[in-house]
Amino acid sequence: MSLVPELDHAAERRALRETGAAFHARLWSIGTGGNFSVVVSREPLRLLITASGADKGRLGEADFTVIDGDGEPVDAGGTSPSAEAFLHAVLARDPSIGAVLHTHSVWATLLSDLHATAGAVEIAGYEMLKGLDGVTTHEHTERVEIFDNTQDMPALAGRLAAWLESAAGARAHGFLLRGHGLYTWGRSLEDARRHVEVLEFLLEVLGRRTSAAGPPLSS
Amino acid sequence: MSLVPELDHAAERRALRETGAAFHARLWSIGTGGNFSVVVSREPLRLLITASGADKGRLGEADFTVIDGDGEPVDAGGTSPSAEAFLHAVLARDPSIGAVLHTHSVWATLLSDLHATAGAVEIAGYEMLKGLDGVTTHEHTERVEIFDNTQDMPALAGRLAAWLESAAGARAHGFLLRGHGLYTWGRSLEDARRHVEVLEFLLEVLGRRTSAAGPPLSS
Amino acid sequence: MSLVPELDHAAERRALRETGAAFHARLWSIGTGGNFSVVVSREPLRLLITASGADKGRLGEADFTVIDGDGEPVDAGGTSPSAEAFLHAVLARDPSIGAVLHTHSVWATLLSDLHATAGAVEIAGYEMLKGLDGVTTHEHTERVEIFDNTQDMPALAGRLAAWLESAAGARAHGFLLRGHGLYTWGRSLEDARRHVEVLEFLLEVLGRRTSAAGPPLSS
Amino acid sequence: MSLVPELDHAAERRALRETGAAFHARLWSIGTGGNFSVVVSREPLRLLITASGADKGRLGEADFTVIDGDGEPVDAGGTSPSAEAFLHAVLARDPSIGAVLHTHSVWATLLSDLHATAGAVEIAGYEMLKGLDGVTTHEHTERVEIFDNTQDMPALAGRLAAWLESAAGARAHGFLLRGHGLYTWGRSLEDARRHVEVLEFLLEVLGRRTSAAGPPLSS
Repeated sequence: MSLVPELDHAAERRALRETGAAFHARLWSIGTGGNFSVVVSREPLRLLITASGADKGRLGEADFTVIDGDGEPVDAGGTSPSAEAFLHAVLARDPSIGAVLHTHSVWATLLSDLHATAGAVEIAGYEMLKGLDGVTTHEHTERVEIFDNTQDMPALAGRLAAWLESAAGARAHGFLLRGHGLYTWGRSLEDARRHVEVLEFLLEVLGRRTSAAGPPLSS
Repeated sequence: MSLVPELDHAAERRALRETGAAFHARLWSIGTGGNFSVVVSREPLRLLITASGADKGRLGEADFTVIDGDGEPVDAGGTSPSAEAFLHAVLARDPSIGAVLHTHSVWATLLSDLHATAGAVEIAGYEMLKGLDGVTTHEHTERVEIFDNTQDMPALAGRLAAWLESAAGARAHGFLLRGHGLYTWGRSLEDARRHVEVLEFLLEVLGRRTSAAGPPLSS
Repeated sequence: MSLVPELDHAAERRALRETGAAFHARLWSIGTGGNFSVVVSREPLRLLITASGADKGRLGEADFTVIDGDGEPVDAGGTSPSAEAFLHAVLARDPSIGAVLHTHSVWATLLSDLHATAGAVEIAGYEMLKGLDGVTTHEHTERVEIFDNTQDMPALAGRLAAWLESAAGARAHGFLLRGHGLYTWGRSLEDARRHVEVLEFLLEVLGRRTSAAGPPLSS
Repeated sequence: MSLVPELDHAAERRALRETGAAFHARLWSIGTGGNFSVVVSREPLRLLITASGADKGRLGEADFTVIDGDGEPVDAGGTSPSAEAFLHAVLARDPSIGAVLHTHSVWATLLSDLHATAGAVEIAGYEMLKGLDGVTTHEHTERVEIFDNTQDMPALAGRLAAWLESAAGARAHGFLLRGHGLYTWGRSLEDARRHVEVLEFLLEVLGRRTSAAGPPLSS
């Protein structure tokens, strides 16, 4: 179906490689953890996504694949996408989402487990929230949903799609997988990177606050 | 009114860009958070200040604007200043202040919220206090006032101006906005940068101390 | 016995030097702590290993020695290996182990002491576990055995060899020496480095979790 | 008295400048904190020491002065030494001490205050202790004395000299000033730098341990 040559989307590859190096340096995608994607075509939906098993701190030109709206590789001979590619595809069906970033930080891993019973991490009252798209005041409560982790991607993608259509999902800027990490997105890769910085910052504030002063408050 | 060309103040731009990169690396101005300014003229009062929404870790030549003593852009066609520009202008009316730096660190965000009821963070007895202008002994108590955060800049500027004229304000080297971050200043940009390093260091000591040993002591 | 010239194995030296610089930057092998080795011959068993007392962050071309399966230097005139070389040799007798890495991080030092009575750190339920060779689901419990620290290397090597032949040892990806640090390994140096990243990440999660929320849970 | 030209001791200046940059990057000598010296002559005793007020992360060629065994500048026209130069001179009277390093880390600041009543931080049982000169087993207790901080350097130097002649002082590798920082030393600058790395590592272990598990144990 696709006539896209293997090494097309050079600018997007470059931007994702630079993103990977920056996130690895911040310890947000160590080992082979994390996946990054950008929408390269809307009709039909196509995403350029990092390949499974690639070291995210040292992504090469060829450590990418192009997937369709079901998370399937468009070019059968290309590099295999991650099992999590399906989640990127489900998110990118929303026409306002141009990039999806999935990171594995210490604080996201820890807090998504500590707050699993509550079903979400709620973050309220911090100025840094204004770094999230559409948030114009610190008097905002960001609910970061926590989904149970699973290796069954189609089942998870189903729960995710239903949530995205709910009022809570429509308002959200990201979600957590329990004991696993953060998914966030944006209109552009730049917006999505800012959302990673903002949400990781706020998770660190919440985690250190819990250490310093007991359980977090959500306004 | 101003005949200052858009890209004047090259040395000040360079110094603020370098400051932004250094602070971003220390995670003190991630996302688009933080604002930095230097006084470029005293009569009339003019400040070169970072533009709203610019990435502080990668400031470009043009990510600045010149404002007057009311925080208004001097050149209507220039880049829009931050809403917080007014606070910089209010501070710079004090002739001993040549630079104002506003940072968003994890510890400043957290401690300004934890200590909000007390109205201030008090730091006493540490040698590092001697890095603050005019402090010559560790036997000093630095009171870092906490103002409630607000999106209403004129109201905040009013409270700030009144405090600056009080005895406490006259003695201070910085203040916190609750859940938001630190403002500090100095005679020169170099002095202001040292004040950021010193105050952020002391906030980290206080935060880690609270985690290790319960509520902080203020002598 | 060996005809291997002093500076052979250039590629392995380069890879271990790069590993040392990266680990020092992450504060995993400060001072002269840590030892790194790769198998350079299987029949007879030969390992290239870092020399005793070398600064692991700035390894030179000559800061290595070749040892045999008893941890003894093959070339009597070469650089002296670490006393811990014997442990590397014992591990590398397993034909599936091609590289051994020993690091000294703050979290490994601390947690191996805190959990010494339990005899192991158990880590369960985290997605990052999938970065360990052969682990395909987060529903995995990794038992990281803790051995008492000792300066008697032959005695420790004996305990280690017995454990490696037990069911627990055969399943393990690493172990801790109490108050000392982590040993991990892999089929290749790349696998062993990923295991260091994964295990250090999980120890940090465990340590910060204990600070934030009391004693760790093991599923 | 001295015929030493202002910019002599080029190798020592270079080594101390590199030390300053490395320590600043590790956040051990931020602001203008910290002082570093090396013995450049034994008879008569002369030390090259960093100048008062210099930014330790960006030391210039001229940010040094040469002092005698009383901490007084040898060349009256040179750069002014720190008030703490006297402490360096007192330490360097011991012929086995060739370099003295004074750092201001967060953990040293915090723990020297938390443990002030006990009069010392005791560190025992950790392998990293073997990085201290003459320590050959982890079964060692390092007593890091805490002196009250003061701005009266001659008085402090007197207490320090008496302690150095005591059995405890003779065994020590460093000491803390309360709420201020660490002094350590070594036969060479390289040894002293290793002692900073080892002691700062162990203070971090102790501090994080206290956060995770209550008050520290000393064997």
